[in-house]
Amino acid sequence: MSGSIFGQLLKISTFGESHGEALGVVVDGFPAGVRVSAADLQPYLDRRKPGQSAVTTSRSEADAVEILSGVFEGRTTGTPLAMLIRNTGQHSGDYDALKNRYRPGHADYGFDRKYGFRDHRGGGRSSGRETAARVAAGALCQLLLKEMGIDCYAYTQSIGPVAIPQKAGEPVDRQLITKTATAMPDLEADRQACAYIEKCRKEMDSAGGVAVCVVEGMPPGIGEPVFDKLDARLAHAVMSIGAVKAVEIGDGVLVSESTGSANNDAFLPGDGGRAAKRTNHAGGILGGLSDGSPILLRAHFKPTPSIAREQDTIDRDNNPVPLTIGGRHDPVVVPRAVVVMECMCAITILDALLVNMSTRADRIIRFYETS
Amino acid sequence: MSGSIFGQLLKISTFGESHGEALGVVVDGFPAGVRVSAADLQPYLDRRKPGQSAVTTSRSEADAVEILSGVFEGRTTGTPLAMLIRNTGQHSGDYDALKNRYRPGHADYGFDRKYGFRDHRGGGRSSGRETAARVAAGALCQLLLKEMGIDCYAYTQSIGPVAIPQKAGEPVDRQLITKTATAMPDLEADRQACAYIEKCRKEMDSAGGVAVCVVEGMPPGIGEPVFDKLDARLAHAVMSIGAVKAVEIGDGVLVSESTGSANNDAFLPGDGGRAAKRTNHAGGILGGLSDGSPILLRAHFKPTPSIAREQDTIDRDNNPVPLTIGGRHDPVVVPRAVVVMECMCAITILDALLVNMSTRADRIIRFYETS
Amino acid sequence: MSGSIFGQLLKISTFGESHGEALGVVVDGFPAGVRVSAADLQPYLDRRKPGQSAVTTSRSEADAVEILSGVFEGRTTGTPLAMLIRNTGQHSGDYDALKNRYRPGHADYGFDRKYGFRDHRGGGRSSGRETAARVAAGALCQLLLKEMGIDCYAYTQSIGPVAIPQKAGEPVDRQLITKTATAMPDLEADRQACAYIEKCRKEMDSAGGVAVCVVEGMPPGIGEPVFDKLDARLAHAVMSIGAVKAVEIGDGVLVSESTGSANNDAFLPGDGGRAAKRTNHAGGILGGLSDGSPILLRAHFKPTPSIAREQDTIDRDNNPVPLTIGGRHDPVVVPRAVVVMECMCAITILDALLVNMSTRADRIIRFYETS
Amino acid sequence: MSGSIFGQLLKISTFGESHGEALGVVVDGFPAGVRVSAADLQPYLDRRKPGQSAVTTSRSEADAVEILSGVFEGRTTGTPLAMLIRNTGQHSGDYDALKNRYRPGHADYGFDRKYGFRDHRGGGRSSGRETAARVAAGALCQLLLKEMGIDCYAYTQSIGPVAIPQKAGEPVDRQLITKTATAMPDLEADRQACAYIEKCRKEMDSAGGVAVCVVEGMPPGIGEPVFDKLDARLAHAVMSIGAVKAVEIGDGVLVSESTGSANNDAFLPGDGGRAAKRTNHAGGILGGLSDGSPILLRAHFKPTPSIAREQDTIDRDNNPVPLTIGGRHDPVVVPRAVVVMECMCAITILDALLVNMSTRADRIIRFYETS
Repeated sequence: MSGSIFGQLLKISTFGESHGEALGVVVDGFPAGVRVSAADLQPYLDRRKPGQSAVTTSRSEADAVEILSGVFEGRTTGTPLAMLIRNTGQHSGDYDALKNRYRPGHADYGFDRKYGFRDHRGGGRSSGRETAARVAAGALCQLLLKEMGIDCYAYTQSIGPVAIPQKAGEPVDRQLITKTATAMPDLEADRQACAYIEKCRKEMDSAGGVAVCVVEGMPPGIGEPVFDKLDARLAHAVMSIGAVKAVEIGDGVLVSESTGSANNDAFLPGDGGRAAKRTNHAGGILGGLSDGSPILLRAHFKPTPSIAREQDTIDRDNNPVPLTIGGRHDPVVVPRAVVVMECMCAITILDALLVNMSTRADRIIRFYETS
Repeated sequence: MSGSIFGQLLKISTFGESHGEALGVVVDGFPAGVRVSAADLQPYLDRRKPGQSAVTTSRSEADAVEILSGVFEGRTTGTPLAMLIRNTGQHSGDYDALKNRYRPGHADYGFDRKYGFRDHRGGGRSSGRETAARVAAGALCQLLLKEMGIDCYAYTQSIGPVAIPQKAGEPVDRQLITKTATAMPDLEADRQACAYIEKCRKEMDSAGGVAVCVVEGMPPGIGEPVFDKLDARLAHAVMSIGAVKAVEIGDGVLVSESTGSANNDAFLPGDGGRAAKRTNHAGGILGGLSDGSPILLRAHFKPTPSIAREQDTIDRDNNPVPLTIGGRHDPVVVPRAVVVMECMCAITILDALLVNMSTRADRIIRFYETS
Repeated sequence: MSGSIFGQLLKISTFGESHGEALGVVVDGFPAGVRVSAADLQPYLDRRKPGQSAVTTSRSEADAVEILSGVFEGRTTGTPLAMLIRNTGQHSGDYDALKNRYRPGHADYGFDRKYGFRDHRGGGRSSGRETAARVAAGALCQLLLKEMGIDCYAYTQSIGPVAIPQKAGEPVDRQLITKTATAMPDLEADRQACAYIEKCRKEMDSAGGVAVCVVEGMPPGIGEPVFDKLDARLAHAVMSIGAVKAVEIGDGVLVSESTGSANNDAFLPGDGGRAAKRTNHAGGILGGLSDGSPILLRAHFKPTPSIAREQDTIDRDNNPVPLTIGGRHDPVVVPRAVVVMECMCAITILDALLVNMSTRADRIIRFYETS
Repeated sequence: MSGSIFGQLLKISTFGESHGEALGVVVDGFPAGVRVSAADLQPYLDRRKPGQSAVTTSRSEADAVEILSGVFEGRTTGTPLAMLIRNTGQHSGDYDALKNRYRPGHADYGFDRKYGFRDHRGGGRSSGRETAARVAAGALCQLLLKEMGIDCYAYTQSIGPVAIPQKAGEPVDRQLITKTATAMPDLEADRQACAYIEKCRKEMDSAGGVAVCVVEGMPPGIGEPVFDKLDARLAHAVMSIGAVKAVEIGDGVLVSESTGSANNDAFLPGDGGRAAKRTNHAGGILGGLSDGSPILLRAHFKPTPSIAREQDTIDRDNNPVPLTIGGRHDPVVVPRAVVVMECMCAITILDALLVNMSTRADRIIRFYETS
């Protein structure tokens, strides 16, 4: 109830600061019987870890995930999985000058007002580094979603003014997502985006961008009416990622200028007794429930607030002071944030699937008759 | 946990269908000692109720709110307030033809897949009519927020291509919000928007639009780190309103093309020992905590899916069938949805303020020493 | 989160005061497709309603339950069921003398300290009358439990010194529970208990007693490890009934003087591949999970604190004052509380069954393949 | 929502198995600014750790607690504290013979039915060893409760037939609790209890007992009406400890044979404008709210189910088999469980105090005006 726990039946509880001992997560409510080892999760963490390319921070962290509980003979037991990621590459001294000054665009001021003081080293708990724990939890969920035939993936759609040619929902080259430095599934856009990022860096500035998440193979009817609509929970999940300032479902901001006749997706007879749709303006969610079409989300990330050029700010005593941020920072967060968004969606989707099981009396009765 | 309950310390539990007996809400955790009567809440419900102007449905409902519990001698008791809004103007027969057909853009198909059957009359529980109960709860929260000096208000920014001249965050004429048919705080824009809506209606079509919510007077440091960031909870709250397909905080989608130097809001010394900011690109929330500047949210509403022209769809047996929707429908939902957005934000803000009280040991100790 | 909501996947949210307009409950998360009408629920409310016999208060209330939402064409829709019970027999004037005095054994003093003031009429929200709403919710759960072959029932084991001959777990004559004034399944014990109650009443005093709840047909493995053990949740549910001061599972308080060799229940081969047990000291729950044997709970109810003889107390200004309680009061609460205990157990059991469905990956995968 | 998370505003999330890598807990919602180090917590863990005396298991574990997050410069930051306790003394081979056999009195059968398989080594997640993580969290809460002037402590009242001379609520010699092998605050009773335990052990048997928890200095009005009554939450907390089969508040099971005139506690004028009570049959809780008198709870623990003598049971294929349990086991759990009970009560009490802060509008307004 106080910030670092997420989920309904599947609850993740994260902890850890940028420059503390370790980051980690306890996953409560993950189903029993899923094969898992640290090696299955590590590739997800590797997509997020720093120091991989010219477009990320040079802070070096192995981000090696260790499973402490909840797995027996290679399978999840149904009881809590705790996962730990030790911090190894902290340079806490880089932050001494920031102890009493509020970095623009960061949570420093709010933390001081809320808690009376703060761990100023690298942002402490408000660091983007906390997302490593989310990725560990999300990677776990991905393993079970795959067994259920549900494919949840994310990629970079644009960085600054450079966008890939495909709109959200159009097929992309999945192989490229993990091969390009920007997580863009397009080599030419990646090249241009890298150049743009390099230009920002030279100007002691930073870039923003847009990430897309797609969920294919979703059964229809998932999500709960009213407040726990699937899109509301996904928006919550994705907006909880530090730098996100806007979330769109399907056609998103474009719907406000569309008309009903253009925006409605006509239903067509689909396979296996299911409905299909002629278009997917809705992004796979109608009235808060999945409709069987691919779910499409877009998240807009702000430019990294830690920039090298001098900025105006105040200190703890409310005096104006100049601020120069040293340390090692990402010139753009999107390439590393893509897997965080994917993982937050995977967690939310799996949780919604679990909650949905208790919806119908006939299925509940059959479940207990056959189990 | 299953859809119709929202909040952490302040929990609202809503019920009711479009064509059932009544709509209502139970508010649990609302503080004791707030003066309230049905008359204080009714103006909020009146802003949402149908049949007010040419740009809303002609369904006529008094939407009179009745307080059933939780108030004694004119003040809240601290125990649950139940509020009831009787349905009076149902024409259920209008929906007989839709019983076995799925309306495009609606939750019909999802409901059938999820629950095995559905109350097809006016959308049942998935009707926008359920938001009347949210407004009753939000109106109550507004009473206490006002006593705390927090001003939460919403208005229409655009309908289709017609926008008011002010950007989000710029001052508007508050008086006009409740005087114009569109809830736009600008007479000329209202006139043009009404003309646009009329054109859509004549073409048997519908319109979308954008609503803005502003929260002024917010103390800094409200919200919880990581998953319960204030913007994440607001996004959840606002995206849970039926027709919303995108939520933006501050500069929203524009941030992805901005740079750090342009997007960062420099801190300045403010009054009373608090920080001020030179700009407010962040929309009053940094790292998930309020920063003391006005909170700015925008929600993008899709065009009403119920349109008069014939559409293609399927029936329950997966056969293609034509669909003509009779009944009485809003040609655009934004003018009535503005107060729903305002109320969802008021609920979320008050809840966050309550949760924040337990944050600091020194304040907790003082609280119990002095109470 | 603030007192009047109970449950995990199945959440009930109650409201109403003893002398307010109405009592009621919203049930969120109740499965779709269960046949229900007010007539199905009324018999449960009738077991609790006042004025039925010489051993209950003479306050007369019809306690007629009205279903406001969540039912369509006679079946639950899967969306919230709201149920209302109007108050009709209030004599609020009876309580004027108590406005500024604290009744011993009641919550008056705590309410004043907590909320700053209180609805003093009949105890307001702290009245036992709020349990009518629990009974409406529990009666609903009983309908589905019966369809699942789970039989949850409660009866009076003792009143003051008068006990039925059977120990908890031994077969009783179920027919008698609803026929005797005391809800004892034994005519002779009922006769003696009525005489004892009458003696208490003549002495301007009141009686306590013990109720038993039994749950038969429970599948094994229900409940969650650690904090959400089935017995922990049942203890929470039953201890939340106003007058309960002790809860026992199985042999209860006797276990502390037993030994492992006597207290352990040996496993035996059972029918249908399930285990049986030679004895049931554990009361059907081992390690917090059901073991397939009948669940046995006992609750100890204190004597009604509202007694006719004069008592010592203080007023709001901390002055000693005498207190004489007028009005109409039960000389013992157990006969009417039995159905409340049964209903709280039914709610808890059904909720645990729903939560348990998401436990195993293999069953989840099969659930979605076949639905 | 799935078993290993407890609390409302203060949430603890535990993990770990008897023979896994480590046990641990994440505490979310703990207030900022409390001085804490591992050395402050270790004494609580030492009271629970095995191998301390002749009346406990000979398994040797240091149970050294490590703080991984949430503390900066010696004070809690308000963000999650993760604490880790490494397992070091596992002898997993002791359990090989039990892999396919269900130990009477244990959760083995339930776990297999629920999850399809189980970590059979020492009971896995159902081991009493998981309570070490609860103690770490509870020790933390004790630090803040002490700063608030609230004294929460527990001791052994009886083991088998041997009881201390004092009834619950009567003063005991606090120093002795941590000095006697049984946690009894009485040297003679301790001596007799040790002899009784030794007799049980020689007979290849085990003992049960009763523990008491007392909370002094509690402000009145804490707890929430209806479902979140303070006694209901305490009963939940204490019944969630593995071997507990009954929970009593105040006079507990005795109330059922008492009368209203004897059981009611008369109010008297107290100090500082607060009420006092002539007696404390209620155990400090009336109507679910603290009344300012000491809170008194009793928990009845069953005899350790792991006994050395041969028992009858079945295997996974439902065949009758004999069972002999090797390994190292406590002949009685109460001496080590006392601190677990104390810690669960401390967690519950602190959580209730935090939730209570948001109860009154006047206090909320003043809180924000002065902070």
